[in-house]
Amino acid sequence: MTPTRTRGPVRVVGTGLLGTSVGLALATRGVDVLLADPSPSAVALARDLGAGRPATDDDPPPALVVVAAPPDVTGDVVADELARWPDAVVTDVASVKAGPLRQVADRGGDLARYVPGHPLAGRERGGAVAARADLFAGRPWVVVPGADQAAVRRVEDLVTDIGATPVALSAAAHDEAVAIVSHVPQVAASLVAARLRDAPAEAVALAGQGLRDVTRIAASDPALWVQILGGNAAPVRRVLGALRDDLDVVLDALDRLAGGGADDAGAAAGDGGPAVGASAALAALVAAGNDGHARIPGKHGAPPTPYAVVTVVVPDRPGELGRLFSDMGEIGVNLEDLRLEHSPGQPVGLAELSVVPAARERLETALSHRGWVVHSSPR
Amino acid sequence: MTPTRTRGPVRVVGTGLLGTSVGLALATRGVDVLLADPSPSAVALARDLGAGRPATDDDPPPALVVVAAPPDVTGDVVADELARWPDAVVTDVASVKAGPLRQVADRGGDLARYVPGHPLAGRERGGAVAARADLFAGRPWVVVPGADQAAVRRVEDLVTDIGATPVALSAAAHDEAVAIVSHVPQVAASLVAARLRDAPAEAVALAGQGLRDVTRIAASDPALWVQILGGNAAPVRRVLGALRDDLDVVLDALDRLAGGGADDAGAAAGDGGPAVGASAALAALVAAGNDGHARIPGKHGAPPTPYAVVTVVVPDRPGELGRLFSDMGEIGVNLEDLRLEHSPGQPVGLAELSVVPAARERLETALSHRGWVVHSSPR
Repeated sequence: MTPTRTRGPVRVVGTGLLGTSVGLALATRGVDVLLADPSPSAVALARDLGAGRPATDDDPPPALVVVAAPPDVTGDVVADELARWPDAVVTDVASVKAGPLRQVADRGGDLARYVPGHPLAGRERGGAVAARADLFAGRPWVVVPGADQAAVRRVEDLVTDIGATPVALSAAAHDEAVAIVSHVPQVAASLVAARLRDAPAEAVALAGQGLRDVTRIAASDPALWVQILGGNAAPVRRVLGALRDDLDVVLDALDRLAGGGADDAGAAAGDGGPAVGASAALAALVAAGNDGHARIPGKHGAPPTPYAVVTVVVPDRPGELGRLFSDMGEIGVNLEDLRLEHSPGQPVGLAELSVVPAARERLETALSHRGWVVHSSPR
Repeated sequence: MTPTRTRGPVRVVGTGLLGTSVGLALATRGVDVLLADPSPSAVALARDLGAGRPATDDDPPPALVVVAAPPDVTGDVVADELARWPDAVVTDVASVKAGPLRQVADRGGDLARYVPGHPLAGRERGGAVAARADLFAGRPWVVVPGADQAAVRRVEDLVTDIGATPVALSAAAHDEAVAIVSHVPQVAASLVAARLRDAPAEAVALAGQGLRDVTRIAASDPALWVQILGGNAAPVRRVLGALRDDLDVVLDALDRLAGGGADDAGAAAGDGGPAVGASAALAALVAAGNDGHARIPGKHGAPPTPYAVVTVVVPDRPGELGRLFSDMGEIGVNLEDLRLEHSPGQPVGLAELSVVPAARERLETALSHRGWVVHSSPR
């Protein structure tokens, strides 16, 4: 086992999903973790899961403290910990950074020893029982730089030991960033999914993969998101306001197209009436979405790579998908990405296998020879 | 090969992605398909792909005509075909239904022989070269009922022969349904993705799976969506207007939370000031999204099923994913669903394997024994 740069003990305050996962990540690498939480049973659970040992008054003072409290109270807890351990560096994992910083400043806390942090982990619900040592594996973890570079480096080393990738961003830049890439997408997913609540069953029955993708994160915890959105209200308001402006352009264009008395964009535009420009406005939005989408990093943080997609029909009999991947393994083409599409009504699914374009033909041929129904399409 | 109910020849007018796929689906089952398109080279391409043979003046009159023209002109083409073949049943595949119906009525077409249709296929771009015989396999295909039940039944049989599942909906109900489950989600994805266009690179670098899911369909063809949205303007306007109303509630709540002078929802509400009720409004939206999301059909049209998710860390070495699925195949647990998560920065991915809850423990144990790092979490 590679030795960690972090020397224990590390004190974790708050043993929910994130705190327990931090504890697991460190404990499994041999770091001494001290667990604290307002609830003794929460501490006991985290201990039982292997995340560390309960903190006692006999322990040596920690050199490093990770505050994993709810976003609302993180600043207060950080201030408490800074005061209690005058030599410790204190970091946190809250999904907003400016708010807790302000709270600590208001409490007169020693800001030099507070290094705000935020792991962008894939799962934010489930409680301690869903904690995993590898929750942060390969994920970005924002570490806010400060005046004390040694303190910042201690936290970056901690993040690396946990298995994540430290990313330097100011608190303000962080909050704006997560508003755009996390908070506004959550709101959008919830808004679209909310339209389904009262929709006729016959409409919902037509749901396809597009709807599923857009609304996947709509199955999120309301109480948690109240804290997150409330704690990042101003940046989210700004980004969402800009989105609403774009939406208003779409609504105006639709008004003009619907009200033109013609049933299609072509005739309405041909009239030279109020629908002129409406089609262009709609096209401009979709094109802007194309541009934005293209900026999302591809696999493992690399620039977006155009893969070839080989689509395989998979009958819904037991073991069929396993057989497909056994065959893939034997054929020896590296699978870059994978999607499984649902097919309502009939018992077939579609597996979309992403491979480097150079390997597509070989894969198609080999799968066909093994009896699979395959087709390729450009991504 | 099971004999089809459909007797040829079937005339396909418009040999883009959908028309060519219809031709392929029928031709591979032995049905005689006649191809027509304003562009002779489009006809030649479809023929070369195996979708049928070019229509000539010497052919017998078709009993069935499938119009696969762009949505804008579908009504006109349907009217032309109704007039040209006085004994034929004519159907179409346009993604809106009320507009073409009105166009045909305005042209004085024989509405009894026109059975509007719409296949909800997974892919709406790529042109004829992306056409597949199984594009519609297991997908819903709306068939609008009309006065002539025999004509409707002919089209339902055609749909079944093509491999899709006929679904009866009136034109108006169809247009409202696709507005909710397809068109508004597209607009939402484009709106969120558009925010990324001018976002700082450091922000986009934090992108996670949630953002990717919400914006996946943002990589869509602007010109096509102008036609679709324009052709369904009134229903989309209604649904989007309701969404905008929900968005305005969110914006108002954020205004109150941001303007309260406190940095977190808790303190703001405690003041008893304008933020009272703001948190509840946010929670209500996310909860409404929970409810709507829960209504989306699960695998194969069944009610949503709670699967157990087993998460496996997959190192990004060649063949690792193939090895995982070889092992899955040997272990013999049926894979109900699958997601592959990207992990920017470090070369690992997470494979989320959905299995029936009863099989979870056996799968975890077996995979662990084979050296995989596995964790389970409730879905």
